[in-house]
Amino acid sequence: MSILISEVGPRDGLQNVSATMPTEAKKAWIAAEAAAGIREIEVGSFVPAKVLPQLADTAEIVAFARTIPGLTVAVLVPNARGATNALAAGAHKLTLPLSVSETHSLRNLKRTHEQVIEEARQIAAMIKELPEAERPHFEGSLSTVFGCTLEGHVPDAQILRLAEQLMAAGCDEVGLSDTTGYADPAAVKRLTKLVRGVVGEKALTGIHLHNTRGLGLANALAALDAGLDTIDASLGGLGGCPFAPGASGNIVTEDLAFMLDAMGLETGVDLEKLFAVRSIVADALPGEPLYGFVTDAGLPLGHRIKQLESEPAA
Amino acid sequence: MSILISEVGPRDGLQNVSATMPTEAKKAWIAAEAAAGIREIEVGSFVPAKVLPQLADTAEIVAFARTIPGLTVAVLVPNARGATNALAAGAHKLTLPLSVSETHSLRNLKRTHEQVIEEARQIAAMIKELPEAERPHFEGSLSTVFGCTLEGHVPDAQILRLAEQLMAAGCDEVGLSDTTGYADPAAVKRLTKLVRGVVGEKALTGIHLHNTRGLGLANALAALDAGLDTIDASLGGLGGCPFAPGASGNIVTEDLAFMLDAMGLETGVDLEKLFAVRSIVADALPGEPLYGFVTDAGLPLGHRIKQLESEPAA
Repeated sequence: MSILISEVGPRDGLQNVSATMPTEAKKAWIAAEAAAGIREIEVGSFVPAKVLPQLADTAEIVAFARTIPGLTVAVLVPNARGATNALAAGAHKLTLPLSVSETHSLRNLKRTHEQVIEEARQIAAMIKELPEAERPHFEGSLSTVFGCTLEGHVPDAQILRLAEQLMAAGCDEVGLSDTTGYADPAAVKRLTKLVRGVVGEKALTGIHLHNTRGLGLANALAALDAGLDTIDASLGGLGGCPFAPGASGNIVTEDLAFMLDAMGLETGVDLEKLFAVRSIVADALPGEPLYGFVTDAGLPLGHRIKQLESEPAA
Repeated sequence: MSILISEVGPRDGLQNVSATMPTEAKKAWIAAEAAAGIREIEVGSFVPAKVLPQLADTAEIVAFARTIPGLTVAVLVPNARGATNALAAGAHKLTLPLSVSETHSLRNLKRTHEQVIEEARQIAAMIKELPEAERPHFEGSLSTVFGCTLEGHVPDAQILRLAEQLMAAGCDEVGLSDTTGYADPAAVKRLTKLVRGVVGEKALTGIHLHNTRGLGLANALAALDAGLDTIDASLGGLGGCPFAPGASGNIVTEDLAFMLDAMGLETGVDLEKLFAVRSIVADALPGEPLYGFVTDAGLPLGHRIKQLESEPAA
């Protein structure tokens, strides 16, 4: 079984770091991670430079990343204006976040649910005007779907209604996003099943998880069990959400890649090469903590030998 | 479904801390954790005081813990001599570790496999001499079963042979122990199935996991999926194995209890009371780091409400 690790560090990581990483360092990071076998990278966000100066060079980064063979270049767009820029830059994938908690939506995107759905409609219309071969993949991301630090639990019915509305607005798929680190394995399985029930299996394949309460990899395992095959992660666990207080820390790409590799799942990732990418990020963000258990502990002795000898993963 | 969290901090945690926790603090810790709903605690180890002075008061701790209603008082015994003392003290459960890596066995217990099996036979014989109502439960723990920092991968055939030999020697059950933090979810499922295949389902119910490579809770989830219902954990993640270089950190009791609770599984544990036990340990071990994600981040807003509203765990 093949699993897609979608690296979100250059977007979700850097937007939560106060320092601005130099453009050349971002390029080196993205190139090195692609060379390590990561096939999808969210390289930036088309938001006003006033809001997130760290990501002001996103258009240039997209142009660079497009030159890397085989790499899916993803970006976050908060609205139709951002999507216009993303389309001009030539991103392969656009993700529009919609916080299922309306309080969080107003705080994070300064828009009501209906306003975000309207942005989705406009983005889908713009994409449709492009020649078919040039159309990017368009995902609506259901943020705070496992609960919100401002509202708490969000009712299932509201989540399912918004998932349907995103698809009706013209998204190619929806994603589940544990913006706040509230997910647990049972909730991951339950919501995956519920949302797939209304949008169909093919329109929900990915999940965005945080490790805020230490359950990140357990939730990733639950997502795999539920049939999802795309998991977001951030190199060194950089990132979080500045507008959801107390919510920090994407799951660590290195730990996720190790877990999947140890389980005998195909990721295309060379672990040693991936671990080496940390030095690029560390050098470009002095003083910024990088997380990761397997990078601290090292690979198990005989990791490769074990893989070859043991029976297929259960 | 009900899951037993077996607290091993007073044994596995304290044996890896250089300071010796005062006996009265140990008693306060054990009493507070039992009051928080933990139903089994490994309170110490019957090893010579010269080897582990931190656990020299184990007999007194067992005597105290036996006075707590409903608590299973477990101890580790390295050999028949330790078991003699454990039986005299009145422990409810004895665990004899057997490292499936013979190199680790020689380094840790200073015994070959055959010598450990012989100790198991002697312990079983001693237990059999007791009146039936007074016989403690006797577990043989398969250490380094997911790989060894000295030998690497240990062949399945060797693991299965040793599991059978422990049962033939008179153990009531065997346990899987990831002494080195090498386990992954697929390996947990695979080995559980293989070992149960030779000893039977009822003779393998528990697992001991470390979080060395960040996979601890994912491995716990895999263990639940595989049908195990007893999971070791250590308050604040105290512990590891001093004789397996680079192997540190039991899974954190607080994070495990939170995960199980969030999933709607019964543990009997009151999370807030459990979290409060940390201050007893912190005060008694000044300067010793305590780990835990959920205790840093806090419970999700509306955690209880979510539990009541959502459907049963998948």
